[in-house]
Amino acid sequence: MATGSKYVYSFGNGKAEGRGHQKELLGGKGAGLAEMTHIGLPVPAGFTITTDCCATYFSNERKWPRGLESQIKNGIAKLEKACRKRLGDPRDPLLVSVRSGAAASMPGMMETILNLGLNDESVEGLARVSNNRRFALDAYRRFITMYGSTARGVHRELFDEAFDHLKNQHTRARIYKPENEKVLDTEVNEEELEILIRRYKEIYKQHTGEDFPQKPFEQLVGAINAVFSSWMADKAVTYRRVEKITGLAGTAVNIVQMVFGNMGDDSGTGVCFTRDPSTGENIFYGDLLINAQGEDVVAGIRTPIKLAELKHLMPEVWDQLLAVRAILELHYREMQDLEFTIERGILYMLQCRTGKRSPMAAFKIAHDQATKPLLSKAETDRLVRKNYLPRHYAGLAVKPVITQEQAVLRIKPVDIERLFYPVIDSNMSRIELQSRLLATGINAVPGAACGKVVFNAAHAEELAAKDEKVILVRKETSPEDVGGMHAAQGILTATGGKTSHAAVVARGWGKCCIVGCEVLQIDYDNRKMHASGKTVHEGEFITLDGTDGLVYTGEVRLVMPETPPEFKTIMSWCDQIRRLGVRTNADTPADARKAIEMGAEGIGLCRTEHMFFDTEERRLAMQEMIVADTEDARRRALNKLLPFQRSDFIGIFEAMNGKPVTIRLIDPPLHEFLPHTRADMEKLSQYASVSMDTIKHRAEQLHEANPMLGHRGCRLCVTYPEILEMQVRAIIEAAVEVRRRGVKVFPEIMIPLTIDAKELQLLTDQTRSVADSILKETGARMNYTVGTMIETPRAALLADAIAEVAEFFSFGTNDLTQLTMGLSRDDAGKFLPDYVNENKAAVFKDDPFQSLDTVGVGMLVKWAIQKGRSARPKLKVGICGEHGGEAASVMFCHDVGMNYVSCSPYRVPIARLAAAQAVIRESSGVIKLRAAARALAAKTKPKKKSQKKK
Amino acid sequence: MATGSKYVYSFGNGKAEGRGHQKELLGGKGAGLAEMTHIGLPVPAGFTITTDCCATYFSNERKWPRGLESQIKNGIAKLEKACRKRLGDPRDPLLVSVRSGAAASMPGMMETILNLGLNDESVEGLARVSNNRRFALDAYRRFITMYGSTARGVHRELFDEAFDHLKNQHTRARIYKPENEKVLDTEVNEEELEILIRRYKEIYKQHTGEDFPQKPFEQLVGAINAVFSSWMADKAVTYRRVEKITGLAGTAVNIVQMVFGNMGDDSGTGVCFTRDPSTGENIFYGDLLINAQGEDVVAGIRTPIKLAELKHLMPEVWDQLLAVRAILELHYREMQDLEFTIERGILYMLQCRTGKRSPMAAFKIAHDQATKPLLSKAETDRLVRKNYLPRHYAGLAVKPVITQEQAVLRIKPVDIERLFYPVIDSNMSRIELQSRLLATGINAVPGAACGKVVFNAAHAEELAAKDEKVILVRKETSPEDVGGMHAAQGILTATGGKTSHAAVVARGWGKCCIVGCEVLQIDYDNRKMHASGKTVHEGEFITLDGTDGLVYTGEVRLVMPETPPEFKTIMSWCDQIRRLGVRTNADTPADARKAIEMGAEGIGLCRTEHMFFDTEERRLAMQEMIVADTEDARRRALNKLLPFQRSDFIGIFEAMNGKPVTIRLIDPPLHEFLPHTRADMEKLSQYASVSMDTIKHRAEQLHEANPMLGHRGCRLCVTYPEILEMQVRAIIEAAVEVRRRGVKVFPEIMIPLTIDAKELQLLTDQTRSVADSILKETGARMNYTVGTMIETPRAALLADAIAEVAEFFSFGTNDLTQLTMGLSRDDAGKFLPDYVNENKAAVFKDDPFQSLDTVGVGMLVKWAIQKGRSARPKLKVGICGEHGGEAASVMFCHDVGMNYVSCSPYRVPIARLAAAQAVIRESSGVIKLRAAARALAAKTKPKKKSQKKK
Repeated sequence: MATGSKYVYSFGNGKAEGRGHQKELLGGKGAGLAEMTHIGLPVPAGFTITTDCCATYFSNERKWPRGLESQIKNGIAKLEKACRKRLGDPRDPLLVSVRSGAAASMPGMMETILNLGLNDESVEGLARVSNNRRFALDAYRRFITMYGSTARGVHRELFDEAFDHLKNQHTRARIYKPENEKVLDTEVNEEELEILIRRYKEIYKQHTGEDFPQKPFEQLVGAINAVFSSWMADKAVTYRRVEKITGLAGTAVNIVQMVFGNMGDDSGTGVCFTRDPSTGENIFYGDLLINAQGEDVVAGIRTPIKLAELKHLMPEVWDQLLAVRAILELHYREMQDLEFTIERGILYMLQCRTGKRSPMAAFKIAHDQATKPLLSKAETDRLVRKNYLPRHYAGLAVKPVITQEQAVLRIKPVDIERLFYPVIDSNMSRIELQSRLLATGINAVPGAACGKVVFNAAHAEELAAKDEKVILVRKETSPEDVGGMHAAQGILTATGGKTSHAAVVARGWGKCCIVGCEVLQIDYDNRKMHASGKTVHEGEFITLDGTDGLVYTGEVRLVMPETPPEFKTIMSWCDQIRRLGVRTNADTPADARKAIEMGAEGIGLCRTEHMFFDTEERRLAMQEMIVADTEDARRRALNKLLPFQRSDFIGIFEAMNGKPVTIRLIDPPLHEFLPHTRADMEKLSQYASVSMDTIKHRAEQLHEANPMLGHRGCRLCVTYPEILEMQVRAIIEAAVEVRRRGVKVFPEIMIPLTIDAKELQLLTDQTRSVADSILKETGARMNYTVGTMIETPRAALLADAIAEVAEFFSFGTNDLTQLTMGLSRDDAGKFLPDYVNENKAAVFKDDPFQSLDTVGVGMLVKWAIQKGRSARPKLKVGICGEHGGEAASVMFCHDVGMNYVSCSPYRVPIARLAAAQAVIRESSGVIKLRAAARALAAKTKPKKKSQKKK
Repeated sequence: MATGSKYVYSFGNGKAEGRGHQKELLGGKGAGLAEMTHIGLPVPAGFTITTDCCATYFSNERKWPRGLESQIKNGIAKLEKACRKRLGDPRDPLLVSVRSGAAASMPGMMETILNLGLNDESVEGLARVSNNRRFALDAYRRFITMYGSTARGVHRELFDEAFDHLKNQHTRARIYKPENEKVLDTEVNEEELEILIRRYKEIYKQHTGEDFPQKPFEQLVGAINAVFSSWMADKAVTYRRVEKITGLAGTAVNIVQMVFGNMGDDSGTGVCFTRDPSTGENIFYGDLLINAQGEDVVAGIRTPIKLAELKHLMPEVWDQLLAVRAILELHYREMQDLEFTIERGILYMLQCRTGKRSPMAAFKIAHDQATKPLLSKAETDRLVRKNYLPRHYAGLAVKPVITQEQAVLRIKPVDIERLFYPVIDSNMSRIELQSRLLATGINAVPGAACGKVVFNAAHAEELAAKDEKVILVRKETSPEDVGGMHAAQGILTATGGKTSHAAVVARGWGKCCIVGCEVLQIDYDNRKMHASGKTVHEGEFITLDGTDGLVYTGEVRLVMPETPPEFKTIMSWCDQIRRLGVRTNADTPADARKAIEMGAEGIGLCRTEHMFFDTEERRLAMQEMIVADTEDARRRALNKLLPFQRSDFIGIFEAMNGKPVTIRLIDPPLHEFLPHTRADMEKLSQYASVSMDTIKHRAEQLHEANPMLGHRGCRLCVTYPEILEMQVRAIIEAAVEVRRRGVKVFPEIMIPLTIDAKELQLLTDQTRSVADSILKETGARMNYTVGTMIETPRAALLADAIAEVAEFFSFGTNDLTQLTMGLSRDDAGKFLPDYVNENKAAVFKDDPFQSLDTVGVGMLVKWAIQKGRSARPKLKVGICGEHGGEAASVMFCHDVGMNYVSCSPYRVPIARLAAAQAVIRESSGVIKLRAAARALAAKTKPKKKSQKKK
């Protein structure tokens, strides 16, 4: 920031140098104050020091930039003029608050100093002017505490101890209060406060080596520097990292004239929302404290009354506030969170910002704003007549506040997410929760769950069958655990990341899941686990908070959010807007039905392998196939599996009722299906009539150093064409049967892990040969397509050749991400956090398994679509990785021209929302994704030596 | 092949329709016969049916294409005219041989029928003309056998049994031969042969239902079809797959007038080479049988005499043959392998082809041909005077046969490879070898080794310390086994592919290694292994033939090939020609010295982690670092490792004496370093004062599902910057010390597994900070560079951003191949063969871990070089994967403009050769790699809609 920069923005007397859109420069609070001033609302005068100034302060070794001091002095001068008071004036001093205010809310993280301007002289002026010496002394006491602790690092406890000492030694004796009753702050009298102030100044001097500053400007300098410094305090840095707050320059500093709500019964302070933040109802909602300061609300010392009481206590102020409410919501076109103070009957607005709301309220508010007026005609007219509501707001107040498209933009993916999962009752005591915290892991699937700890999947199934609620706790899960995982209320694993087996499977079901909880020491042998010095045995209750990744001991009360009727309406708006199709990943008829309920337009990924685990009979037949040592023996086992797969497909086709179903042929390595325990091996030995040695030897043979890169995907069908044959037979026979029952069916057969067109040609030929012969035999006529997943970089690179064979592409971005980065999603949990956000290596904004790496992996995706369509212009392209249900990734998919995304049933609405938002933002240019994509495309083009005129 | 195609190419009487370059169309034999005829050598007349005809035969459901019959009849007519004999003429029949002949040699795979044209009548004509009825009858007998078995599938044993019966029942009695002596074929007389022929014809009829064909044309049709069919016989198909013979249309069929070397002492037959194929000496080398047919040589019934004997036996034929030798070598400019027959003093050339030779001979021949004339002036003049050597060859004969560049092209990588490894003594009985065959695996490192079986690395070290020769046999190897691997003569593993740990490490040492020997059932507990029905216990001898991947029981005699002096000369020619630098992968001073001896110009990859295993002390310090739970504890352990690493680097820098050394920071995941056995864990527990539980828990924590995609490479240094700090300190301190000793040093610090420029920037900054502070402290001045490996697709895709940071790129094509294809080199052994060559999926010509996948992985390599140099025009680019020592890959590296390749010391000469060959072929256009690369580049460019005129 060069000399001559403007660091200080004044406001007051209906004029403001700043504006509401300057949040980045002025912080949220500063921008709000400027805007409210600008639009004529009653705001105390003041000025804001910019966030840029804060950044310059830090880059300048914590020194003020040139010009700042004079600009501040100028700001003070304006402020004094507006208030007609002067800082430090011993007769009638101007007092100011000094508050931080970054562009993003960081509650409790940053510093505030009130009552600045008081000193040994001016405190008496305040006493006179306020006609309340106790009030003035108390304000001075509070100022010394805040300034000493915040600006000079004196431990706040020292002040608190001195206060307690005074109360117990002086006040208690004076008012004859028994030992077992607490002396209240308000019971301390003027004389005692005088003693206390002397004591405070001693403490200050003792710990700083200096007298408490008496010059207001010196106080101000200290306070401003304290606010700047709080930006880089450890707790603030950590908070920003955790909350993924990036790209901010620093905090702004707001110096505002103090107003006092504690000047008597014609004074008060309040916090309110322009609509009910819990239900979304169109009512003016808030809390009010009469004769109190804002601090008192926060401290929770007194119980506030309902805002609506104001109507009776101060009817004019109430009407004025009603008008403010209308002005602000209509001005911002958003529900606002307001703070105000009434000083001796005069209303001052201290803050306005977009209000946080419950997921339910988010839908109701967006819906209502888009369909109904804020105020009734009568109420509008009344407020206009009273001159509280300017005439030009009258027209707005009786029309819908926003458009449907704006309403769609207002919904956040997390609003949807939180709508479908139980959550911990917000009435639970935070202190109790904290004491029950056992461990923190990775929040893989949101929601909460409570049940008895079980360490074994089979045992979980047994207990669940007896209607016991259980939480399955494992070091890691494997496909064999799926039954137990399904039976459990929630899943907790010690290892793995957000796309580990446990996380992916649980997400498919929308089941609460915490993974990568590395501090857990699980002792399978003794059926217990250990963390944070606590031991939990099998059968004891724990509670998971999957939204935040927290594990609690014992039973915690859970509540289920209600789905508001407005959800459906807004989703239908999304569907009208979006161009991107939304399908689901579903392996069972139940999943398929759930997904349709969630708005899915087809199945984008039906994994056939989960079907092999459904029952013991299937599992054993599958295992028999694997241990078979001849093709004949394999075929015999496959013949046992055929009817199962066929009936599964019949169920899915019927559930989808003519919607397209993409079925992926077997994908995981065979060893994932093998029995692990001796008992299971013996069962298999008996069932398949093979020796235990054979089973063990086969297991050894199948063991892989890196299964993710091993004998899986279509490689299995290259080696064992009979598996493909069985699966294709099951698919087509099922389709024929469903057709016969009069239900439309459109199967899309998908070949996974392709690396080359020749490989795909081989398997496509085999697929068509089986399918066509069945169609010929049965005389059925049916369209089906054969396509491939694009999961390997090689397939993406050679997409043009592959598209000559494949009728559709589906990007498996889980694998594609793993391979492009050389990063196992199961193992990355240990070090990937170092790469995310502003951590060490700061490569990704989000976990790339959660949110698609549009720079690297995205380059391959774009390339593959472009090359693929160059060979087959009508190539259908979708995505079926985990990214298909993540909003930013969905927008990327929209932008690169995919036909659809596919995600787990519970994420279908998120995808619908994101797809609609992508269209709106594209046309409104709010996010210039398309331009960015174009820039990326230009970047990926090899430079040409001879280009037509630059 | 459309009707009207020319299928038959005649030759004879000095005229030929074909030429020598038409090998693909006429097969090797046919092209040789045509060419020899064309240049005026004495060749029996005949004609060749093309390989295209064979292909058409198969695509036409094994029917002759239209026009073939008439062309053959026309060919016969010409042949009869040239020989002045007619097929089936009862007075003086023309006899022909019908032989297969593909473009590639497939010894023993394909069929041959001799003496065709004989029948019950013409046999008597032959008897009269040859004045040898026994000869004629024997020829007829042989013909029936060959025709019956080859053309009609009569089991050869039936004929053999009948012959044996005759010899034992008739001949033995007639000549009074005792039972314990064998009756020789030659002892059977005319009457007995007549009986035999009748019996043969009965057998023929019994098994075919038809009389033995008497019409020569019918015989010819049967014989031609038999040769065609042999192309698709199982054994031939298998042979082509194993030998990687691809792209051939089919076999040609050669119908040639029979000449007989068994017509008396003025007849004979021989096989010879224009130079000694074992030593390469410039002598006419070969074997001769007087009064014998070619078959007899092959059958080994009689012991041949030296070719040079011919000089005394038939001086004129000898001189004529000397001239033929000169003509053919000078004509082809290559050492030739010749077959000839002398019929009653007349020389007939039957075959000529490029001669196979020993590696030693390959160098000597190429060198001699490029530097010395074939014949002396005197000898040349003599042969010219005798009119045997045409005058226009006289000038050629006294000049070098080829240029130095041609000589370089003549050397094959395998010639070099086989030069440095012991091999199984070629005098060993093949039958005995066969009986000792235990198992076949993947030939990971060539050469042979013999020793006692040991199943445990530590035990191998112990025995080796006592001078015992051992073979380390493991299911798989891990870095902990490196000591034992080094101590062993050879390494055998049951799992893994050519780039598994065992293979890569062994290749670095040039140590014989067989991997992926899946039939081996290793029983560690009982210290034995089992395969092919044999059991081998620990301590018993086995012998490995790493060149062919064969495992033998017992001790087999090994011999070491000598390095010919010409090797050095030709390598120096290569160095003059090539532009691509050749470095080595070396981790120790010994390796470094070896590599310099092999011609390395620097180290392209010095892996620092092997150093951590060298001694127990190092291993323990490393393990202590890993189990440490605080940064301080880690630093303490790292401080113990620092002096070791520093002294290793000092040794390497001194050995390299100013040549550049690229040092890669730690790469493998930490769990690879952890102790596995309880004893080793206890040792660590004591050494590092940590509990066994901690060690186990740490091991569990570090366990990874897919280590290849896990916490490794530079991710380790992101997590533990202190490791990078120690390694950089060791490198720079060593460099400073070596500098101080007056040795030049140029370290290049290489960061592995980069995925992003920001990550690289972080680590580069840390590296420079440590290095520069040491240089500042010591006052040393030194250039060093910091670069990165390009091993992940993401790094390749984002190479421009990465090159902004990296001063050099080194492609780690092992990992890049794994990731681009999603293919673990350790696990691919089980299914990758299905993808190679003409197997099922036929994706790769060669194992992509052996020979770079230029289509897929190569696209990324090219892209990365181009993008990298767009950001940093002088970017140095090399390769340090296994591909750096494979000829085709080296040529690719040359072509895409890399600065150097790096490979294991023993492969350095191969890389030097390939780099030189790339230059020669590039300029001569023999292989239009550059054009292909350009085409590839064009293919990888996104299509532009507006292109200047197509």
